[in-house]
Amino acid sequence: MTSINTHEIDIVKAKTSKIDSVDFENLTFGNVFTDHMLVCDYKDGAWEKPIIKPYEHFMIDPSAKVFHYGQAIFEGMKAYKDENDEVWLFRPDQNMERFNKSAVRMAMPEVPEHIFMDGLKTIVDLERNWVKKGIGNTLYLRPFMIAVGSGVIAQPSTQYRFMIILSPAKSYYQGEVKVIIAEHYSRAANGGIGAAKAAGNYSAQFYPQKLAQEKGFQQIIWTDDATHTKLEEAGTMNVFFKINDTLYTAPTSERILDGVTRKSIIDLAKSEGIKIEVRSVLVDELVAAAKDGSLKEIFGAGTAAVVSPIVGFQYKEHYYELPKIENSTALQLKDKLTKIQYKLADDKFGWTVKV
Amino acid sequence: MTSINTHEIDIVKAKTSKIDSVDFENLTFGNVFTDHMLVCDYKDGAWEKPIIKPYEHFMIDPSAKVFHYGQAIFEGMKAYKDENDEVWLFRPDQNMERFNKSAVRMAMPEVPEHIFMDGLKTIVDLERNWVKKGIGNTLYLRPFMIAVGSGVIAQPSTQYRFMIILSPAKSYYQGEVKVIIAEHYSRAANGGIGAAKAAGNYSAQFYPQKLAQEKGFQQIIWTDDATHTKLEEAGTMNVFFKINDTLYTAPTSERILDGVTRKSIIDLAKSEGIKIEVRSVLVDELVAAAKDGSLKEIFGAGTAAVVSPIVGFQYKEHYYELPKIENSTALQLKDKLTKIQYKLADDKFGWTVKV
Ligand SMILES: Cc1ncc(COP(=O)(O)O)c(C=O)c1O
Ligand SMILES: Cc1ncc(COP(=O)(O)O)c(C=O)c1O
Repeated sequence: MTSINTHEIDIVKAKTSKIDSVDFENLTFGNVFTDHMLVCDYKDGAWEKPIIKPYEHFMIDPSAKVFHYGQAIFEGMKAYKDENDEVWLFRPDQNMERFNKSAVRMAMPEVPEHIFMDGLKTIVDLERNWVKKGIGNTLYLRPFMIAVGSGVIAQPSTQYRFMIILSPAKSYYQGEVKVIIAEHYSRAANGGIGAAKAAGNYSAQFYPQKLAQEKGFQQIIWTDDATHTKLEEAGTMNVFFKINDTLYTAPTSERILDGVTRKSIIDLAKSEGIKIEVRSVLVDELVAAAKDGSLKEIFGAGTAAVVSPIVGFQYKEHYYELPKIENSTALQLKDKLTKIQYKLADDKFGWTVKV
Repeated sequence: MTSINTHEIDIVKAKTSKIDSVDFENLTFGNVFTDHMLVCDYKDGAWEKPIIKPYEHFMIDPSAKVFHYGQAIFEGMKAYKDENDEVWLFRPDQNMERFNKSAVRMAMPEVPEHIFMDGLKTIVDLERNWVKKGIGNTLYLRPFMIAVGSGVIAQPSTQYRFMIILSPAKSYYQGEVKVIIAEHYSRAANGGIGAAKAAGNYSAQFYPQKLAQEKGFQQIIWTDDATHTKLEEAGTMNVFFKINDTLYTAPTSERILDGVTRKSIIDLAKSEGIKIEVRSVLVDELVAAAKDGSLKEIFGAGTAAVVSPIVGFQYKEHYYELPKIENSTALQLKDKLTKIQYKLADDKFGWTVKV
């Protein structure tokens, strides 16, 4: 990928802003969008010039491949505002890289840096009023690509649309998070697309998620589909387990998304002197640790949810409640991470990128 | 589901037909669409009145859930014209049932019979000029449903659009079909969505399919993702193996689509006195049968491809060529099936439905 900054982006500004109609204190996640969106089309083997224009509906063919064959990928990232009104991205290079890995796996064209990264910075800059100060306030950034080429034959499209839309957000999960461990359903196959941020991975979870929610659980912790013995990840979060004084999280694989929050948590834990091991945790091991009291914490980690402590888990009709911990590792790590993101602590890792 | 025929369908006819511009002798699959489409929206927990109107692009929100989470399902069926210019569907009840099973698995609303079936018959009737006489000529019917509700949060949509679009078609695969047996990639997980006709299942196969095509193979025969030892199905076809004088095909499961052609072939074989067993065939068994000459045939079966004889398969860098057989079981069964579909033979199963 080349980063030629002479590439231009056309900008057509919205005549009026809807920002004053938005209640930033009472946002539901992913519901309100900013005034503009970025659009860039891929045709005849090449990306066209990106355009930033007013957020609006667009026209599409009923036979577009995205509708029939699910050729669609996305990323989820956030912009943060610091005390001096500067706007920051968090490890956007990681999202771009993962986006293009997803693209390859879904037989879609990669999006070059001058479109993904320059496009992202340009639109976030234009919408900087939508990034509110104060911890927990963010602008959620959603780059995505869909197959817009026509034709109901199960083959990759030749035409694609890359877009970026932006949504002001507070953090994702509110309240207590109870999880259930998957015994039957699965989110990913060996040799499948679980490691890609492909649209189809998410709708595949909706039905089991609904069943879980009906039982009173907010999330499912997925297990490997072949044996249901290894703990993998949650719907939109990687998962960490603290047993005795050590944190564990599953290694990434073809079945698990390589989360940016996960890898940042691993680095932060190491630099804080917290013991951490990247290895599969077995369901049996978790149950045994819950029974003998060595299981101290479970938490999810992801861009939307940041760090989300889990209060208990259900497995085979039995609910295991976790101990209430004063100064949990989860909240310690969340605090460290958040302070870097909002520029309240030294960013010794070089993770933050100014817009 | 209720079948109340007092439900109406609004019809807005196209001012002109594009039928005269279509070269029916040189169709590429799924490329040309008829003059009309059926559209029916689901909002506030209910289906609205369906409308048949000119085929056209439509407006959609960039944050529509189908783009981000792949909530989309479809069916593939065909209409056939007999010698007396009557138009027939083949087992449409099976497709409707499967469509609604897919809907449940993808946390989408079921489409009632008066919309799916009456809608289908009404639009096929309107487009009956597009169904050409002669074996191999069909009108391919594509009912599908997409999540059109807005919002980038990974939860089921509350708004959906059901559509039917129609495309005149000759049969799908032309030329020799060589297949490769999956050793690494997979199409479905245990507890996943492989048995649903969900959009995401298809794009997941595009990349491995591309790799296969680059090696000179038209199709992949998928194996179970956990062990890659059991033969399952191909991209859009179920698969049959003839070893000695017996046909084998894998049992349907959570990982395998319950194909209408497959079940029809099973019934036809039985009624023809052809030995058939529904059980998993192991890759090792296939290789051994190829080596000792007991492997007589492999063929795919699906609506688009009808019955598609396979000339050879690749496994672990070795290519196994199949014997050339004069009056193959594949072509015998294809002939029986086709004759029923085109009303050239008695339909003792009651599979055909007049439009
Ligand atoms: C399946 C899945 N796992 C994990 C994550 C967490 O990844 P990240 O920390 O990069 O947001 C996400 C969300 O992006 C996800 O969709
Ligand atoms: C994955 C898959 N398997 C098998 C089939 C064959 O099913 P049918 O005979 O109902 O067309 C199809 C096509 O519909 C399919 O998509």
